[in-house]
Amino acid sequence: MQQVIHPFDSIREGEFRLATKLIKDAYLGEKVHFVQVDRAEPPKQDTLRYLAAEREGLPLPRIPRIVYLYYYTNEGKRFHKALVNVSVGHIITKTQLPKGVVGPLLPEDLGEVEKLCVEHPLVKAEIAKLKLPKGVYVQNDPWMYGTDESNEDLQLIQCYMYLRYDHPESNHYSLPLKFSPVFESFSHKFVRMDYLPGGYDERITLTEPWKQVPAVEFHPDLNGEHTMRIPKPLIIQQPEGPGFTSKNGAVEWQGWKFRVASNVREGFAVYDVSFKGRSIAYRISLSEMTVPYGDPRAPYHRKQAFDLGDCGFGANANHLKLGCDCLGYIKYLDTIRTNGEGEPILLPNTICMHEQDNGILYKHVNYRTNNAVIARRREFVVQTIATVANYEYIVNIIFDQAGAICIQVRATGILSTMPIDDGVTVDYGTNVGPNVMAAFHQHLLSFRIDPAVDGHKNTVVYDDVYPMEPNTSLNPHNVGFYSKRTVLEKSGSVEQSPFTNRAYKIINENVINPVSKKPVGYKIEMPARQLALASENSYNVHRAKFATKQLWVTKYRDGQLYAAGEFTNQSRNDTGLGEWANGQDLVRNEDIVVWATLGFTHVPRTEDFPVMPVEIHNINIVPFGFFTKNPALDLPQSNNRDNQSVLVNEDSTGPSCCKSSL
Amino acid sequence: MQQVIHPFDSIREGEFRLATKLIKDAYLGEKVHFVQVDRAEPPKQDTLRYLAAEREGLPLPRIPRIVYLYYYTNEGKRFHKALVNVSVGHIITKTQLPKGVVGPLLPEDLGEVEKLCVEHPLVKAEIAKLKLPKGVYVQNDPWMYGTDESNEDLQLIQCYMYLRYDHPESNHYSLPLKFSPVFESFSHKFVRMDYLPGGYDERITLTEPWKQVPAVEFHPDLNGEHTMRIPKPLIIQQPEGPGFTSKNGAVEWQGWKFRVASNVREGFAVYDVSFKGRSIAYRISLSEMTVPYGDPRAPYHRKQAFDLGDCGFGANANHLKLGCDCLGYIKYLDTIRTNGEGEPILLPNTICMHEQDNGILYKHVNYRTNNAVIARRREFVVQTIATVANYEYIVNIIFDQAGAICIQVRATGILSTMPIDDGVTVDYGTNVGPNVMAAFHQHLLSFRIDPAVDGHKNTVVYDDVYPMEPNTSLNPHNVGFYSKRTVLEKSGSVEQSPFTNRAYKIINENVINPVSKKPVGYKIEMPARQLALASENSYNVHRAKFATKQLWVTKYRDGQLYAAGEFTNQSRNDTGLGEWANGQDLVRNEDIVVWATLGFTHVPRTEDFPVMPVEIHNINIVPFGFFTKNPALDLPQSNNRDNQSVLVNEDSTGPSCCKSSL
Repeated sequence: MQQVIHPFDSIREGEFRLATKLIKDAYLGEKVHFVQVDRAEPPKQDTLRYLAAEREGLPLPRIPRIVYLYYYTNEGKRFHKALVNVSVGHIITKTQLPKGVVGPLLPEDLGEVEKLCVEHPLVKAEIAKLKLPKGVYVQNDPWMYGTDESNEDLQLIQCYMYLRYDHPESNHYSLPLKFSPVFESFSHKFVRMDYLPGGYDERITLTEPWKQVPAVEFHPDLNGEHTMRIPKPLIIQQPEGPGFTSKNGAVEWQGWKFRVASNVREGFAVYDVSFKGRSIAYRISLSEMTVPYGDPRAPYHRKQAFDLGDCGFGANANHLKLGCDCLGYIKYLDTIRTNGEGEPILLPNTICMHEQDNGILYKHVNYRTNNAVIARRREFVVQTIATVANYEYIVNIIFDQAGAICIQVRATGILSTMPIDDGVTVDYGTNVGPNVMAAFHQHLLSFRIDPAVDGHKNTVVYDDVYPMEPNTSLNPHNVGFYSKRTVLEKSGSVEQSPFTNRAYKIINENVINPVSKKPVGYKIEMPARQLALASENSYNVHRAKFATKQLWVTKYRDGQLYAAGEFTNQSRNDTGLGEWANGQDLVRNEDIVVWATLGFTHVPRTEDFPVMPVEIHNINIVPFGFFTKNPALDLPQSNNRDNQSVLVNEDSTGPSCCKSSL
Repeated sequence: MQQVIHPFDSIREGEFRLATKLIKDAYLGEKVHFVQVDRAEPPKQDTLRYLAAEREGLPLPRIPRIVYLYYYTNEGKRFHKALVNVSVGHIITKTQLPKGVVGPLLPEDLGEVEKLCVEHPLVKAEIAKLKLPKGVYVQNDPWMYGTDESNEDLQLIQCYMYLRYDHPESNHYSLPLKFSPVFESFSHKFVRMDYLPGGYDERITLTEPWKQVPAVEFHPDLNGEHTMRIPKPLIIQQPEGPGFTSKNGAVEWQGWKFRVASNVREGFAVYDVSFKGRSIAYRISLSEMTVPYGDPRAPYHRKQAFDLGDCGFGANANHLKLGCDCLGYIKYLDTIRTNGEGEPILLPNTICMHEQDNGILYKHVNYRTNNAVIARRREFVVQTIATVANYEYIVNIIFDQAGAICIQVRATGILSTMPIDDGVTVDYGTNVGPNVMAAFHQHLLSFRIDPAVDGHKNTVVYDDVYPMEPNTSLNPHNVGFYSKRTVLEKSGSVEQSPFTNRAYKIINENVINPVSKKPVGYKIEMPARQLALASENSYNVHRAKFATKQLWVTKYRDGQLYAAGEFTNQSRNDTGLGEWANGQDLVRNEDIVVWATLGFTHVPRTEDFPVMPVEIHNINIVPFGFFTKNPALDLPQSNNRDNQSVLVNEDSTGPSCCKSSL
């Protein structure tokens, strides 16, 4: 059955195959190595006509489906971008990108280097010096090379070397080695052996026989935990099934309507978000992430992952599983990525959607009558999880019943580690096991919020709360405080100011709330955070200007999607917000885009190793004078007929006493 | 069956009756009006001996149970505090407190004023001027008077007047009136009629006939919501019963051991908290809360609730209900408060305890083998909810499986409102309905954390992260950053510093983590916040110094429990942290107490009315180099055999199609 394609739908297999075939045909006789293939965002002026027609039940305009392709020819020497119209089947453009522009890499591209690395004679020679005992194996993680002053025009991969014990799940991150070969990405040519310092400073030593230490293992077979804490089962029962509908990515739940579509770069985006019939956002997604390290010693100064631009958050998304990644009734969506040959690889279940309870939504007890008005807070979660080598990022977009959206990031996985000599501690890292250190680093995620608060002409303002002037006739007791609004007239960024309670808001100046008499709006709540610590003159900052400010505003332009620019791998300059937030564009009462940088400096704990309990970070996007009153008064009162809670009596351990969790 | 009393147990009915009887007997012939009766905290040196003996299975020392009593004699003119030893049955001390010290009030004390207020001829005369139509009733909320320059030595109550429509649940907060009588607390003498301004400034007008406006109603019978959003049932099933044991307030869950005891002032406290056999805290509780308003106009300048000290958080705790306040298997605890006659009033089910799922605790996927290691995050919640007239505070202490404690506050309930004239808007309040405005205010809660991190000699430090000096041999690429520790040597407070990533830690300098080589510790994570906005010279700040800083450290002393001092009602000076955090006491490697001020400036939204969707604020107390590795590796891997999640197919709406929530 052929489904009607919506302009926001993820790429289809047929579209994919047509696009790569057309490109392969265009390079007859040449080997084309694809690194990214996906649907291009349609022009907004087209989709807005489409959405308007859809709402009004009018005939839908045909919007051509466009696919973009990144690929190499000439054995990795030439990097191209093409756009293909797969609705009619022709190539729109194909362009060789200038020297210095480096594309993202496929897992297979890294995998090949990973394999050949340990077979390379120079690496083998270095390994031999370790005089490894039996049952200890060398393993390596190939890293995007990063950038510094020296690497002109070569596309490079840096292999960080580790040992592991005799089990495929042994934690090699616990046993880092002190040499690190560099290879060319596609030619696989050996470039150089870097040696890693083991003391406080940058000094290195020659490779010596390995002094055996135990690994800090996480896998249940290896971690040495003999007595298990078994929590008793807690099952989410939904006897009437899921409370949401999801059809081809179009979701309806508790008054919310939106579309969810996967993509290889961002993981997923939500589109055309409305609540109770009123528009809130055109598109929300994670746009980029950079993870710079604070260890200043070569080669670590180049450790600066761009987990979207360098390798694709969706391309590295987990296959989510029932009963593991979310509970209850689960709806999954898939992602399609390319392999080097331009064939579609299906990544199943990369996105899960489900409902959850999150405590009380509101309550009031009338003390005169002892009547309680109480509603539970049900939430709808869209979740994806990406594994980028050692680290896991869980990205949730959570909708509540009162018109709020929460962007939640849960950081977990394994710390990236460095070797450290006996007796050494450093003030830029934490020792997390014998001879293993985890350097301080930062996670700086840019979320792109393309708002549509009651329409597409929006304005960003911020409100500060200040004490009133003391000893005036209005404020004789010196207790008063008030709010002052500042309007962003031009594209740029907003400084953080937690001590004036600065609140960022996206308002629509054309729509006045009849109760508050102020423009309707949504507030963006973010905790004040330390942002990029690297110097302004460092490549870390040159490459990721977005990481220096918490909130950015640009005028909407088609194609401006990624906070650090389209190509981040080995980039030397941010071609994203660094260019677009230029202070020139007028952004008041315009079609605008808001970019929120969720930053956290990660000073590792011993408890974060060998696998890290989640650190949870939220951005709340909440109605602020958007509705005339609490929009969740139409919820039923909580009651035990529905919720079926059970009383625990004193000394009771429940109906079954056959198991104890303690 | 007589249970053995633990020194941390809540007051028993017998103890209560004995204490009030002894006091009543001591004032034969005089009427004693009790306002607060509860167990006094035992001296720590005694309880530590007790806990040590308990741990080692030795004979338990007898610790006398002491009850404190606040009461009035002489028709409310004399205020006393007594301590009674109820183990042997004698009065230890009874003291008349100095003039100017005002006690907390009982709900009944306020209730009497509430009733007589509308019957008072002068109030009736004022009401008559409103020329109210049929079906409209006058209602009032009596408020603690607060403080200003004028009210010498009188104990006062200010009644805020409202209207309501003809239904007991009609929302009077939506219809505030513009006059406000003041009465003496116990003599009930009329003191003065205050008139409330309706414009921007302090000018008042005489009472005029009421211009009818509709109320913004919250109760389902009245709120005008005709089509309901019915979420489909989501039931927490625990087929093997609760995973915790709770016996006389002693809780064990997933390696945690602690005691929970209710009290009338704080709601509850947790005691003797350990995880996996290691001590973390001696006592954690909410210690005080102040809610100053930013509306500078008389009489609002006196609106500054102290929801613990003025009336008792536990004394105003909700009767929690199955299926409403928490889900799953629920264990309840009760509170006992006094009435004026010194009789115990049982407040049942004021505290609920239960387990909940909160997403993923940790995950790592080995990309080489595609094996996932994944555990869900189960939490244990201790919850209480207090209704303080219009407002509700939900206080949760949440334990996770990785050694972390989260203090969570959910603010809900109804905004305190002011009348406002047609066409007026103010920059210190939000119009939330016709002729009703909600002034900006702040919620400043002090949580008292009495730590015992691997013992009772602890130290508070804070760690800042700074960029390294650029262009040095260590940092030639200008990317490095490092952490610098500052030790608190003397009692006092710590400034907030989010942009240096300042992290507060409670460490034990006598115990070195063998892996990190640093002292073991716990980190206190709090978002940077605007704190008290009132001037240093205002009573708002004089009365609540704790509200001016986020973190305070004092040397432990018996009896220093409440952040703003023991008696807050109409107080003029903070006799708590303002005195104790004096910069004199040595607090390094000592028995210390940490006071965390959780502050938020509430700029009301229209969506916060007529009942407010929860605003959620967290303090995380997480192990930082306390364990040598992630302490949750002993959890089973998540699986669908236990969790029983269900796949939603495309276009499916679950097994039952008879209902739709959309």
